Amino acid sequence: MPQLRKDPILGRWVIISTERAKRPKDFPHIDTSPPERECPFCRGKEALTPGELYSIKDEQGNWRVRVVSSIKPFLEPNKKSWKKGKGPYDLMGGVGSHEVVIDTPEHIANMADLEVGNIREVFWAYCERIRALQEDMRIKYVLIFKNYGWDAGGGRVRHSRSQIIATPVNLKRVKEELEGAKFYYDYHERCVFCDLIRQELKEQERVVLEEDGFVALVPFAPRFPFEVWVLPKEHSPDFYKTSWEDLFSLASLLKKVLLKIKILLDDPSYNYIIHTAPFRRPYPGYWSTIEEDYHWHIEITPRLTQVAGFEWGTGFYICPTLPEEAAKFLREVEVRV
Amino acid sequence: MPQLRKDPILGRWVIISTERAKRPKDFPHIDTSPPERECPFCRGKEALTPGELYSIKDEQGNWRVRVVSSIKPFLEPNKKSWKKGKGPYDLMGGVGSHEVVIDTPEHIANMADLEVGNIREVFWAYCERIRALQEDMRIKYVLIFKNYGWDAGGGRVRHSRSQIIATPVNLKRVKEELEGAKFYYDYHERCVFCDLIRQELKEQERVVLEEDGFVALVPFAPRFPFEVWVLPKEHSPDFYKTSWEDLFSLASLLKKVLLKIKILLDDPSYNYIIHTAPFRRPYPGYWSTIEEDYHWHIEITPRLTQVAGFEWGTGFYICPTLPEEAAKFLREVEVRV
Repeated sequence: MPQLRKDPILGRWVIISTERAKRPKDFPHIDTSPPERECPFCRGKEALTPGELYSIKDEQGNWRVRVVSSIKPFLEPNKKSWKKGKGPYDLMGGVGSHEVVIDTPEHIANMADLEVGNIREVFWAYCERIRALQEDMRIKYVLIFKNYGWDAGGGRVRHSRSQIIATPVNLKRVKEELEGAKFYYDYHERCVFCDLIRQELKEQERVVLEEDGFVALVPFAPRFPFEVWVLPKEHSPDFYKTSWEDLFSLASLLKKVLLKIKILLDDPSYNYIIHTAPFRRPYPGYWSTIEEDYHWHIEITPRLTQVAGFEWGTGFYICPTLPEEAAKFLREVEVRV
Repeated sequence: MPQLRKDPILGRWVIISTERAKRPKDFPHIDTSPPERECPFCRGKEALTPGELYSIKDEQGNWRVRVVSSIKPFLEPNKKSWKKGKGPYDLMGGVGSHEVVIDTPEHIANMADLEVGNIREVFWAYCERIRALQEDMRIKYVLIFKNYGWDAGGGRVRHSRSQIIATPVNLKRVKEELEGAKFYYDYHERCVFCDLIRQELKEQERVVLEEDGFVALVPFAPRFPFEVWVLPKEHSPDFYKTSWEDLFSLASLLKKVLLKIKILLDDPSYNYIIHTAPFRRPYPGYWSTIEEDYHWHIEITPRLTQVAGFEWGTGFYICPTLPEEAAKFLREVEVRV
């Protein structure tokens, strides 16, 4: 069973994945796996994936988006939760969920090439899974992300999909964002994200695209070249509360941004992560202002450079493009959806 | 001139490198640079590197270790420092230093293959540069690291070298480590690292090697497979105060660890980072206990897996090896130095 261990200095939880446990010979430096033969995510191959957790079907009863358990889950739902100390160390059982969202039955690699309606359905599936997973009281956070392309950890199978990891702990970076947002709110009594959106829309220097309630921009202090954030213009802490109508606007804007990235940067690998507030906020005090101070958003990071080791180890990043120039380049790419 | 920008939510400083500013076409997804022709780091090619900042010479006057300015520095010393606000944002001039330590005049790629005496000189050069750089009152931290191999950001030139970045800000991860160590100290009145070393030496499960005042171990909650930390057994916050004699023991142990990694994992790319206390600790209060609570160490991380995007974005890592197994594999590799 997978295990969570806590770094005793930083307080950072790490999953020790026993299901995927690797021995020295299991790390090929150059991937030598044979080219893809049978895609397990295409229509008609449903028997190749574990049990279906959720799906959206068309009028003929054919699935359009399908959520399944991961074949090699990092965390598992059907386990008893436990926590214990061991000498000075803390560990807990790897209870949670690790799911794969198959974005489409067609063998299409990049979400940029899906129809807007299809992307909306993928986002709806995310929301539905968050709603379902928060029923499990052991779950603290639901992380939704996409790894597209080999360099982004997307593997060899070129079929568009996303991942959901439901964790029994709140994640370090999520906590840091909440703390940062609260710090700003405590002083200004305004949401830092709302303030930044206002500033960016006024300056227009780093805005990539703005329409129907959403904005895409290059952040002022990005970690990576051509990093783009997508935010709702109206304040909202919880991604999963976005309406079916608004999800269409979001899908339309996101498709345009992903197409711009694909065209401008020659179809690079990329990741996106949905940053949303934890859904359990029982304590008054520390998270009392979360409704007012946190603002969900999506961070998209193309993988264009080798990230040097010190960037891992220090959280100190060097970005080799000027954000204002990156935004200009992205703005100038014409796309139609 | 390079610029530092602060993420207004997380408070994380990012270098925006204008000297290396890249346009979309400058990001080849597959490196197509021609194979190395002339190595600028070999003996006799000194004219190919910028001004020498420090060197160690043999009795004939030939250099054995040489520190030079980076050709494309991330930060520059000869600039006036400035800080300013811009709307809700904070930025400052990229004052600092970016230096390359040429570990050897021979064209040897991996530090594992250098002689122990040579490695000691490299570490002595690190100490000397920290001592010199802390004279500049604008410098807050000196970060020392090595990127070995393409996957670790080490570039195409296969000549062993290290990097030094002196920054005008304290780094986020350094702050987090200090905070974590202080939190533990405030409760226990003991250094957390000293406690962990005692525990590890007692259990022996995760110890890779122990000799002459230093220990190499796989941490209890590693981020990466076969991650190894090297620590002095005696409490010490400052790496640069290590004596010439102790640096020989450190070099000997480090060489063995690097050789074990090279042999076991087929010469993988790796990074190491020296984690040492900030040398300016003027304030009573917050850092008052740093002498007692912080413990310098080196973190070595082989690059064996693609790091998925959510790991960047969340600080939540999945490690596909059991630390106890990794330590056992490393222990069993026999090396002689």
